[in-house]
Amino acid sequence: MSSSIGRILTLTTFGESHGKALGGILDGYPSGIEIDESFIASEMARRRPGSTELGTMRNEDDKPEILSGVFNGISTGTPIGFVIWNKTQRSADYSDIEHKYRPGHADYTYDAKYGVRDYRGGGRSSGRETCCRVFAGALAKLFLRKYGVEVNAGVIEAGGIKAESYEWKPPFPGPLYAPENRNLEAMIEAVRNAKAETDSVGGIIECRITGMIPGLGDPVFDKLDATLSHAMMSIGAVKGIEFGSGFNGARKRGSENNDPMRIIDGKPVFLSHNAGGILGGISSGDDIVFRVAVKPTASIAKEQLTVTDTMDNTTIEVHGRHDPAIVPRAVPVVEAMAALTIADHFLIERAYGRR
Amino acid sequence: MSSSIGRILTLTTFGESHGKALGGILDGYPSGIEIDESFIASEMARRRPGSTELGTMRNEDDKPEILSGVFNGISTGTPIGFVIWNKTQRSADYSDIEHKYRPGHADYTYDAKYGVRDYRGGGRSSGRETCCRVFAGALAKLFLRKYGVEVNAGVIEAGGIKAESYEWKPPFPGPLYAPENRNLEAMIEAVRNAKAETDSVGGIIECRITGMIPGLGDPVFDKLDATLSHAMMSIGAVKGIEFGSGFNGARKRGSENNDPMRIIDGKPVFLSHNAGGILGGISSGDDIVFRVAVKPTASIAKEQLTVTDTMDNTTIEVHGRHDPAIVPRAVPVVEAMAALTIADHFLIERAYGRR
Amino acid sequence: MSSSIGRILTLTTFGESHGKALGGILDGYPSGIEIDESFIASEMARRRPGSTELGTMRNEDDKPEILSGVFNGISTGTPIGFVIWNKTQRSADYSDIEHKYRPGHADYTYDAKYGVRDYRGGGRSSGRETCCRVFAGALAKLFLRKYGVEVNAGVIEAGGIKAESYEWKPPFPGPLYAPENRNLEAMIEAVRNAKAETDSVGGIIECRITGMIPGLGDPVFDKLDATLSHAMMSIGAVKGIEFGSGFNGARKRGSENNDPMRIIDGKPVFLSHNAGGILGGISSGDDIVFRVAVKPTASIAKEQLTVTDTMDNTTIEVHGRHDPAIVPRAVPVVEAMAALTIADHFLIERAYGRR
Amino acid sequence: MSSSIGRILTLTTFGESHGKALGGILDGYPSGIEIDESFIASEMARRRPGSTELGTMRNEDDKPEILSGVFNGISTGTPIGFVIWNKTQRSADYSDIEHKYRPGHADYTYDAKYGVRDYRGGGRSSGRETCCRVFAGALAKLFLRKYGVEVNAGVIEAGGIKAESYEWKPPFPGPLYAPENRNLEAMIEAVRNAKAETDSVGGIIECRITGMIPGLGDPVFDKLDATLSHAMMSIGAVKGIEFGSGFNGARKRGSENNDPMRIIDGKPVFLSHNAGGILGGISSGDDIVFRVAVKPTASIAKEQLTVTDTMDNTTIEVHGRHDPAIVPRAVPVVEAMAALTIADHFLIERAYGRR
Repeated sequence: MSSSIGRILTLTTFGESHGKALGGILDGYPSGIEIDESFIASEMARRRPGSTELGTMRNEDDKPEILSGVFNGISTGTPIGFVIWNKTQRSADYSDIEHKYRPGHADYTYDAKYGVRDYRGGGRSSGRETCCRVFAGALAKLFLRKYGVEVNAGVIEAGGIKAESYEWKPPFPGPLYAPENRNLEAMIEAVRNAKAETDSVGGIIECRITGMIPGLGDPVFDKLDATLSHAMMSIGAVKGIEFGSGFNGARKRGSENNDPMRIIDGKPVFLSHNAGGILGGISSGDDIVFRVAVKPTASIAKEQLTVTDTMDNTTIEVHGRHDPAIVPRAVPVVEAMAALTIADHFLIERAYGRR
Repeated sequence: MSSSIGRILTLTTFGESHGKALGGILDGYPSGIEIDESFIASEMARRRPGSTELGTMRNEDDKPEILSGVFNGISTGTPIGFVIWNKTQRSADYSDIEHKYRPGHADYTYDAKYGVRDYRGGGRSSGRETCCRVFAGALAKLFLRKYGVEVNAGVIEAGGIKAESYEWKPPFPGPLYAPENRNLEAMIEAVRNAKAETDSVGGIIECRITGMIPGLGDPVFDKLDATLSHAMMSIGAVKGIEFGSGFNGARKRGSENNDPMRIIDGKPVFLSHNAGGILGGISSGDDIVFRVAVKPTASIAKEQLTVTDTMDNTTIEVHGRHDPAIVPRAVPVVEAMAALTIADHFLIERAYGRR
Repeated sequence: MSSSIGRILTLTTFGESHGKALGGILDGYPSGIEIDESFIASEMARRRPGSTELGTMRNEDDKPEILSGVFNGISTGTPIGFVIWNKTQRSADYSDIEHKYRPGHADYTYDAKYGVRDYRGGGRSSGRETCCRVFAGALAKLFLRKYGVEVNAGVIEAGGIKAESYEWKPPFPGPLYAPENRNLEAMIEAVRNAKAETDSVGGIIECRITGMIPGLGDPVFDKLDATLSHAMMSIGAVKGIEFGSGFNGARKRGSENNDPMRIIDGKPVFLSHNAGGILGGISSGDDIVFRVAVKPTASIAKEQLTVTDTMDNTTIEVHGRHDPAIVPRAVPVVEAMAALTIADHFLIERAYGRR
Repeated sequence: MSSSIGRILTLTTFGESHGKALGGILDGYPSGIEIDESFIASEMARRRPGSTELGTMRNEDDKPEILSGVFNGISTGTPIGFVIWNKTQRSADYSDIEHKYRPGHADYTYDAKYGVRDYRGGGRSSGRETCCRVFAGALAKLFLRKYGVEVNAGVIEAGGIKAESYEWKPPFPGPLYAPENRNLEAMIEAVRNAKAETDSVGGIIECRITGMIPGLGDPVFDKLDATLSHAMMSIGAVKGIEFGSGFNGARKRGSENNDPMRIIDGKPVFLSHNAGGILGGISSGDDIVFRVAVKPTASIAKEQLTVTDTMDNTTIEVHGRHDPAIVPRAVPVVEAMAALTIADHFLIERAYGRR
């Protein structure tokens, strides 16, 4: 099922950016959990465009409407259906992008696959679909709270500027959702500069999951890092992921990269964290740490070479309200997909694990 | 199903490194395909330890025995069951690893998850399980040949030394399965040095898929890069993946990172390849290019700090025949998992696509 | 995924009878199919309570609102999200069924499973959820039309009276959706009598699928009759299913029950139809014929013994607008689930079959 | 995945009747369960042809060989791979069934689907594949014992003769695996007579699951009766299924068919059992009771009309060692599929239920 993710806690979504609505169904959510609407609203607010000065002025009204599965504020165990309306379905002029393929976008590939395409905005490939992920992720976080698990992410690189000498004290404030650090102003400046030059930048997000227990994840094909990677790479602009020491670990020796263990206060502890909290695809109880690469926003007003759907050469300037950097807006999406994945593994572990 | 991967073409595997046998079932494989046994044998040979001078002298006899689904050399469309026997089930002395957790291994996490563990060798988490992947991948390659799709991988970094100024002319020869390049000897030397020092190194593998058609992959959760990442990160020692410009792309501007299009000979062509052949999760027809980070072999003879299963501090030296670098042996595994994933998407596309 | 059905064409639904809305997502629906809204409306009308004189006067407004996946009247290949609003969310007095378990209903089992329950009406177990099935089934029928496949069902027994000497000329008219036959008036009378006595009756529905091709269905676990049975038995009041000669076939000899074959006009033809169009779980090309048993409506105004959620003995009379027979209303639901299942198998067959 | 069944406890099988071996993988089986080999052997013995005087003299050696997932007699939580060898792969003369389609068999439909077929015996559609089901079912029974759940089946009708005035005291003895009853000798005689006349008979099996808890099964599409029906109808010769009062219940009134509840010894009890232990698709805690219709053996030595694979008319006499009635041999298969389904729902309930 291509529009579904998760084995026991399953999110299925629908919706195009300029259709009537987006929405989804969260199935397998346990009964008896208090649905904290204000927490959901705060999670949605973090994702909203225009919520930071680095974003666009687009004011998406993306309040999710819960249609089922919650009764008197408590989850009932039945599927939670929800919709998020597209209020700003103005009749705009899409004649340019109707026939020209925007570089870096999915316009060409959708046409190649389906032969028909909702060309208004990004259609199904629009970043707007992530509002469903953030909503469902908020519910997953409410479930994980029961286990003391927290999921936080922050921007650690933007426009080629790395955060330096920072402490991990989430949640991180806008506009960049980055930890306080020596380069923070330079990171923000890099985004501003790109914006001023009608261009865009990318960045890198780090995600840490704390309060983990050992034993989540399955051997071989549904390793915890495999399912987390699936979830992360399903986010539109994400083009890479690494766990723990990741690509740099591939440059280390085994004696450096293996994490030694010691017993401290009667419990096993890892003296370093190169594994990113996962060994053999199964959580070790250590914090899970991974980073994702977010590409620069594809929509830029600079002139670019492209082709039409009638196979003619042309150029395009993509105007409109586009973020000069997607990376801050991706932060809550990364958290949401991580929370959904971890919550799913908790449920799976309850099924055939020993808890 | 944690031991299965693929939606239509589904591989399910079983087996521990020191049990009776490993094996699996490849389900959904189309009927009428000639099963070229010598091709399968050559793929298996590339994975075998001891097949290169950088590997161990372990001589695994890993000839797969096909038990069903093939009749008179032709696939019948029914599930292809196969076993690979563990002939060298010698009664060895496992008392050390029975009670001590090897750093960088899954010993601790399996115990935490299951409370019981086949402690002989790596059990289910052993690299030996990849022989099932390579066998099934060989069948997937036979299917993809019909469409002119080729999957090739090579080592482009080993022990911290990057391949430089190379051409992509696969298949690449042992011992390193790396492209001919200026640093090839230095890369090999890095592995030899680690071996001499009873240590190990990691490396980076690049994989390229050629002959692609546009339209493979699904929107949102089963994006082609998401399912490829799932497949790659399910390989034991892989700790990172990136597509196209990947992590470096996150440092570029949109105007640099977007791939411009032109019509050449009546067909759309991408002038650069930063997307890695995938836009919006759907193949663009361009070559698919990704890289995976392989960690250094965890088993090293150097003394390491660890703990016992009774929560005592101890040290361990992991002796035995271990590869100083897993990275060359992972090359055919990366190809196999890529071939299985792409073949699955071809079948899915036949289902609801327009072909 | 417990709220999903189908492998490639997947329907996922949500919604309680007295919540805000019901709805669902139909994923995997091919692109390029014209969505005939008037056909959908006519299918929905057949399911609606009060649509026949044997039903209740309840006037559910169950027009589905398509939210995505259709653009300019054509399916785009992306998931089709839809909602059906519950307009009549009056604040009624549910104090009786809030604490008493209605015999023959799921009240007790939901409480036992979830510990919390939307006690207004049937909640998730209400027959109202079938409106999502009928909507999705209408889309499946539109797809099957391309292949010349027709799905029709009719009531062949009601209140213990069997239809006799009838021809199969669907669609069948209300109020009973039964074929014209010698006993039709007696069948209708049986329902009327039960209604007059504040009781209810059950019945049997036959379904025939014509225009089939051979080759649909998979060996062993996803046999066509197995997946059709799963789909049928998932309908609330259905308690039995049989294919072809079914339970009576179990009383025949092999020489009577086997369907002989002959070549007629160059094509293989079955001289009898005891197999119901399926051999070894795979369609034979012959019409698929099966029957389902529909139990009498559980909600009756007669006094019944039951217990409370505090484990006290009590009695209950279930008042309200309840159908004296569910069986006519189940006819379009049976067709819908059959159409979804067959359409799914067509898509699967396109994937790895030889078409 | 067409060769898999179950969501958390998943059985995947492979194998043709005259290939090298059959086998499978049972995935998701919890760790720490003692694998009682003698119990497995006794279950396999019940299924074996020739195990009763009503069967054939075929002496299949179907001892399953466990290849993984069990260590020192205890399940480890990793997938349990197993093979059952086909020792009697004699080179027989299959020229008759290679080109003629046996009536009542899957020969024609497999050819239509795949274009190629292992024509030796039944290939993949042979009843021999059920040995994998019985093996996996034995493991499921070992798991269910922990919960006090027992699954038993018996023949309650054979050759058109119904068992009368019987008590349910399983397990039932051969040759018919029917409860002791007034008509037992007549039932056996009906099979003997068919055998004497080179013909075959069918029959009906009842299955009862005792020691149930309420709460198993999911709303809407994965109702417990829906998944049990899927499992039962996936057995080769099964052509119908009904729960509780089933088809007869469809002839009752609601006031008769609803099961009244009373509190007895502080616990809710059902005064009748028409629901078959399932309400709204969820177990009520009452015994689960269902019946399946088994068709007469298709292979008979009587001459039958059929066609060839070159579309010519012909006749066929199917000689060889065929059971005059499949129904007794199907008894342990019905139990096995029921045990697998119930065990799967127990695991699912552990995941998101309240236990």
